[in-house]
Amino acid sequence: MELHITCIPGDGIGPEIVRETKKVLDKVAHKYGHKMIYKDILMGGASIDVHGVPLTEEAIADAKAADAVLMGSIGGNTTTSPWYKLPPEKRPEAGLLAMRKALNLFANLRPAVLYDELAAACPLKEEISKAGFDMLIMRELTGGLYFGERRTIEENGVRKAIDTLTYDENEIRRIAIKGFDIARKRRKKVTSVDKANVLDSSRLWRKVVEEVAKDYPDVTLEHMLVDNCAMQLVKDPAQFDVILTENMFGDILSDEASMVTGSIGMLASASLNDTKFGLYEPSHGSAPDIAGKDIANPIATVLSAAMMLRYSFDLDEEADAIEAAVKKVLQDGFRTGDIMSEGCTRVGCTEMGDLLAERI
Amino acid sequence: MELHITCIPGDGIGPEIVRETKKVLDKVAHKYGHKMIYKDILMGGASIDVHGVPLTEEAIADAKAADAVLMGSIGGNTTTSPWYKLPPEKRPEAGLLAMRKALNLFANLRPAVLYDELAAACPLKEEISKAGFDMLIMRELTGGLYFGERRTIEENGVRKAIDTLTYDENEIRRIAIKGFDIARKRRKKVTSVDKANVLDSSRLWRKVVEEVAKDYPDVTLEHMLVDNCAMQLVKDPAQFDVILTENMFGDILSDEASMVTGSIGMLASASLNDTKFGLYEPSHGSAPDIAGKDIANPIATVLSAAMMLRYSFDLDEEADAIEAAVKKVLQDGFRTGDIMSEGCTRVGCTEMGDLLAERI
Ligand SMILES: CC(C)[C@H](C(=O)O)[C@@H](O)C(=O)O
Ligand SMILES: CC(C)[C@H](C(=O)O)[C@@H](O)C(=O)O
Repeated sequence: MELHITCIPGDGIGPEIVRETKKVLDKVAHKYGHKMIYKDILMGGASIDVHGVPLTEEAIADAKAADAVLMGSIGGNTTTSPWYKLPPEKRPEAGLLAMRKALNLFANLRPAVLYDELAAACPLKEEISKAGFDMLIMRELTGGLYFGERRTIEENGVRKAIDTLTYDENEIRRIAIKGFDIARKRRKKVTSVDKANVLDSSRLWRKVVEEVAKDYPDVTLEHMLVDNCAMQLVKDPAQFDVILTENMFGDILSDEASMVTGSIGMLASASLNDTKFGLYEPSHGSAPDIAGKDIANPIATVLSAAMMLRYSFDLDEEADAIEAAVKKVLQDGFRTGDIMSEGCTRVGCTEMGDLLAERI
Repeated sequence: MELHITCIPGDGIGPEIVRETKKVLDKVAHKYGHKMIYKDILMGGASIDVHGVPLTEEAIADAKAADAVLMGSIGGNTTTSPWYKLPPEKRPEAGLLAMRKALNLFANLRPAVLYDELAAACPLKEEISKAGFDMLIMRELTGGLYFGERRTIEENGVRKAIDTLTYDENEIRRIAIKGFDIARKRRKKVTSVDKANVLDSSRLWRKVVEEVAKDYPDVTLEHMLVDNCAMQLVKDPAQFDVILTENMFGDILSDEASMVTGSIGMLASASLNDTKFGLYEPSHGSAPDIAGKDIANPIATVLSAAMMLRYSFDLDEEADAIEAAVKKVLQDGFRTGDIMSEGCTRVGCTEMGDLLAERI
C-alpha cells in the first residue's frame, strides 16, 4: 500500500533520528511491498529560521493531507538560542502546541517500559525494578491549562497572571474511552489520576471517567491523586497498566515515568485524534548539545514509527517487525551512548539505523 | 519561656503521633526550663463528627491566638469514610486548606533528606543514592489553582468545569524571598520550577524570581521546567538545594521527593506566614489503615516540632536537641515498622516516643 507520511525533522538531533527512522521504514516497505511517500515540513526553530514563525498554515495543511505525521524533535537551548528571545507564542514549542490543536490530537499515548536488556539503566534499585514494568500513559493533549484562556495584566500597578484550566464532559469522555479501549487490549486496568480533593475540573473528570467505566465492566478502574501517583511511580511502578490523566498532570507524570525506566532514548509516543490519523514522536527532547555529532539514539523515533504503522495503518506485522529488530539489536549488544553499559558495543546514530534496518 | 502551642491531633494516626511529640516537647521543656501550654482543637474529620464542618471559626481563632500550631494529620479513607460523601467544601481536607488561607500560611517548607541510617529504604539504586541528598522544597501554599475561582456549569446540556490559576507579583515575591533567604543559610542554590513554556503565571513567576535574585548575588539561581524537575528528582536528587515552586507543582514534586528518600515517615514540614507564626505537620498522611494500632512512626511529627522550635521560637539549641535525639535513636537501631530493616529493633509509636524523650 501507499503510505503518505509527513515528516517533521525539526531541531537538534531531530533531523538525524528521522533520517535513520526513514531508513528502517524503507526497509519495511521493501520487505512488505509498500510504498512510503514522505513529505518534509518545517516546524519549531527550523521554521522560525525560514519563515519567522514556528508553524505555517502551509505546514499544517501538509500535515493534514498525509495519513500520519512522523516527528523528530523541536526546540533549542533555552538560554543560548535566539529563538528564546522571541515572545512565547513565537517560540519553537508554540509550533508543536499549535499543531496538536490544529490536528485535534487529543490523545497522547506514552508507553513507559523497562526493557530487560536495559534494566541496568533503571535508576530504581533492583528490589523494585526486578518486577519489571510496562505502563502506558494516556494523556489528554488539547485541553486544560495548555489551551485555556490566559492573560497577564496590571492592576493598580501590580502585575498579575491568570491561566485557566477548563474541561468539558465531551473532552473527558473521548480520552477516557481511548484509555479504556487500550486497557482492554492490555492488562485491563485503568488508573485515573486527578486532584479531586481540590479541583472542580478533577471532580468532573472523575465523574465522567466513572460513567465511561460502566461500559467496560471487564476493566478495573482506580482513582489516584496526582501527588500520590508521583510517589507510586517511584515506589512501585509495576502496579500501573494504563494511567489516564489530564494534560498538565500527564506532562509531569509521563516524564517522571520515562525517567523511571532509565532509558528515555527508547520511549516512543503517539498523539491521536478521532480518526486513524496520528502524530508520532519520541518522548525525549531535541538534545541540542549532541546535535549533528551522530551519537543520538534513534530508537525512540524508530519505535514511534512502529506505533504509526500499528495505529494509523493497521500494519501490525510490520510494526512487530520493527519492534523485534529493536529487541534483536539490543540482544546483539549494540548501544548508543545514552544506554551504553559494560560489555556492549557502542555505536553512533547512523550505525544504529543500519543495524536496525539489517534486522528487518 | 512560655510556649503557647495549639495542637491539631486530627484524624487517623494523628492523635498518636501528636501525643508522642508532646512527650518529647515536654522533656525539652523540662530540660531547658520552658513551659509548654497546649490547647487542642478539632479539624478535619474529627471536627466534622462534632460540628458538621471540617473547621470552625472558633478553631481558627484558637490557632491564631497561639504562637504556633502543631498538627498530626487529617482525612480518612476516601472510599469508605462517610466524610467523603459530603460535598467537597465540607470534607476534611477543606479544613486544612481553609486553615492555611485563614492564617496566611503562604510558605510551605518541606525538607527531603536521605538519612544515612535509612539509606537502605531509598528506592533509588546505590549508584545514585550514595551521593546522598538534602533538599528543601519551598512551596507557595495560598495561591494558584488551590485558591483560584472555580465553578462547574452546564452549557447547552454539556457539563463543564473551570479552575483558575492566578498569581500576582506580590505573592510570588514574598515566597521567592523566603526561598532565597533559606538558601543563603544552606548551600546557596535555588532551583525555581515552573512551566514557563506554556503558562502566563509561570512566565510572571520566572520574571519576579529573577528580580528577587538580584538582591542575592551570593545565591545561584537556575530555572527548571516542572516536567524536567520530575525527572531530575529521580535521576540525580543530589543536584538540588532549595526548590522554589508554586502550589500545585509543589504538591506533586514534594511528594515525589519525599518518596525518593524512601522514608516519608521521617519528613517534617512547616507552613509559615510573614511573622514568626507557623503550622507544623508531618509530610505524610493520616494512614487510617494503621490508626490506633500504636505502630505509626511519630518521628516526622517530632521533627516538625523541632522546626517549630527553630522557626517560631528561635530555640535553636532545643531544636538541635530533638534532631540529635532522632539521629541517636536511629543509630541505636530502633525502628518503627515503616522504616524497619534487618538487624534493627522494631518498636511501636509509644515506645519510639519514650526512646526519643529519653535521649533529650
Ligand atoms: C514542549 C512542551 C510544550 C511539551 C508539553 O509540555 O506538552 C513537552 O514537554 C511534551 O511533553 O511534549
Ligand atoms: C490534603 C491536600 C489538600 C493537601 C494538598 O494538596 O495541599 C496535601 O496533599 C498536602 O500536600 O498537604
